Amino acid sequence: MEELRLMASARSVGRAVKVGGKELKVIAAAPAAFDGLDLAFFAADGAIARALAPEAVQRGCLVLDKSSAFRMVADVPLVIPEINLEATRGHRGIIASPNCSTAVALMGLWPLHQAFGVQRAFFSTYQSVSGTGAEAVEELEAQVQAHVRGELMPRKVYPYQIAFNAIPQVDSFGADGYTGEESKMREESRKIMNLPSLKVSATCVRVPVVRAHSVAVTAEFERPVDLARARAVIAEFAGAELTDDPSKSVYPTPLDYTRKVKCGVGRLRRDSALDNGLSFWVSGDNLWKGAALNSIQIAEAMIREGIALTPSR
Amino acid sequence: MEELRLMASARSVGRAVKVGGKELKVIAAAPAAFDGLDLAFFAADGAIARALAPEAVQRGCLVLDKSSAFRMVADVPLVIPEINLEATRGHRGIIASPNCSTAVALMGLWPLHQAFGVQRAFFSTYQSVSGTGAEAVEELEAQVQAHVRGELMPRKVYPYQIAFNAIPQVDSFGADGYTGEESKMREESRKIMNLPSLKVSATCVRVPVVRAHSVAVTAEFERPVDLARARAVIAEFAGAELTDDPSKSVYPTPLDYTRKVKCGVGRLRRDSALDNGLSFWVSGDNLWKGAALNSIQIAEAMIREGIALTPSR
Repeated sequence: MEELRLMASARSVGRAVKVGGKELKVIAAAPAAFDGLDLAFFAADGAIARALAPEAVQRGCLVLDKSSAFRMVADVPLVIPEINLEATRGHRGIIASPNCSTAVALMGLWPLHQAFGVQRAFFSTYQSVSGTGAEAVEELEAQVQAHVRGELMPRKVYPYQIAFNAIPQVDSFGADGYTGEESKMREESRKIMNLPSLKVSATCVRVPVVRAHSVAVTAEFERPVDLARARAVIAEFAGAELTDDPSKSVYPTPLDYTRKVKCGVGRLRRDSALDNGLSFWVSGDNLWKGAALNSIQIAEAMIREGIALTPSR
Repeated sequence: MEELRLMASARSVGRAVKVGGKELKVIAAAPAAFDGLDLAFFAADGAIARALAPEAVQRGCLVLDKSSAFRMVADVPLVIPEINLEATRGHRGIIASPNCSTAVALMGLWPLHQAFGVQRAFFSTYQSVSGTGAEAVEELEAQVQAHVRGELMPRKVYPYQIAFNAIPQVDSFGADGYTGEESKMREESRKIMNLPSLKVSATCVRVPVVRAHSVAVTAEFERPVDLARARAVIAEFAGAELTDDPSKSVYPTPLDYTRKVKCGVGRLRRDSALDNGLSFWVSGDNLWKGAALNSIQIAEAMIREGIALTPSR
């Protein structure tokens, strides 16, 4: 028997949502609600994931979690199916989906790593406000509306005005001067690509874009890089779309990669500061590949490859 | 006798402009108009600079040019007065002012170079539309107005919508895949800091910010870096303001560094991917330090230091 249950907090209980032509009522997320389910897609914050994921697992359910709660836990696979689907074998009931900026950046970096062996990566992000949540999208819109009316801009979510500005802070600061987002890009890249000593440095910046994150990537490789081969491996990679024709001003932009399954990779060039270096630009939908879509792709790929959904004991 | 002449193209001739309480009429920019002047501040495009600067020089006038026409010419000093004022000694009548992104980036990089010896620098820019010109500022505004009215956005200046977007192209593309702006950041950084073999890689991106450019900089140094000393040298440097208290979300933003003489430097941290590396963020007014203000500062510093305005023969 097939059954889909939509769960949310008390605030949304009873709301009707149409899924595949059928109207479903939202029920309360609670331990017992997971009884009898095979798969649960968690798209809540870390605290809720920590409280409910073990309950779901106890009830025989595989949890695909998009929060940061379990990503760096040793026995939890952190997965981008185009990269490390094999890591899902032998899971213990929870599989984590990566941070949005990391997912987008690796859609370009992984195929290049396969070809040339990445040693070091520098990321500068151009992140959309939807990564912060619905209230941040509303804040940007309200600020733009106020600007047009010549009124003072309301400000609540971000520490600075985001309309017509750039804020070099995503998440809170650690003792090393890096933000949580920047540390995630380092740690999660290492775990997903299984390169524990990969050198990564990130600067994460919020820009007045509604949706889709972009990342300027400069990477140093073990082996000499060949630009034609680099373009070919990007074009062949399932998670990426090669959008790269500088002579015609063809490259990805966040607007063009909003609501796209694949991430766009362009501006590929030999790096002018590194011997075996490549620089590129990647744009991808932070709410799709950077979030729930990746969880769905994990489940689809596991089923397709016959990987057990029930946890190994 | 002191005299100020305002020159422009035919379109603006006759316009009245108030300068220091006195109303001046704009006259036509033409060779003879430079007769008798000591100093000429050029803020026109490269073609006009190439046509008129030699004429002004022939008439005994020192030209401070903010276009890119002469920046890389061997006997033309390319100057940021806080960095290489000495290069103005022995000028031949033209002194060039650097590209806007380069000027802003070096306000952070130069003092760090003085302390630790820069070897390699990676720049990712977040550039405002005013760098393109008044028509680009109008385009962003028109797009935002159209968005609020729910209308289609007009587009003329940029190849893609700039409102709510990020465009990874500033200037046209070269054969190496770098844009003109990116190559300028490399070549001009080398010339200004007198480091002809400095390794530089840049990615230049236009963002929906009206004014002030920002640059995420990651740099590798010859000597071990000390964070306290790095902060101190930035704070002591005449061209920079240290705006760096992560615990209070204090760092520069382009809005805060609009119409500021100094550039703001913050987010200073030991780089996590380089042995002797530092990363930082700098915001500065592309229309001030990135343009005309720097030319004025060159002239002021030359007069203050008693450097001859008349060309050496």
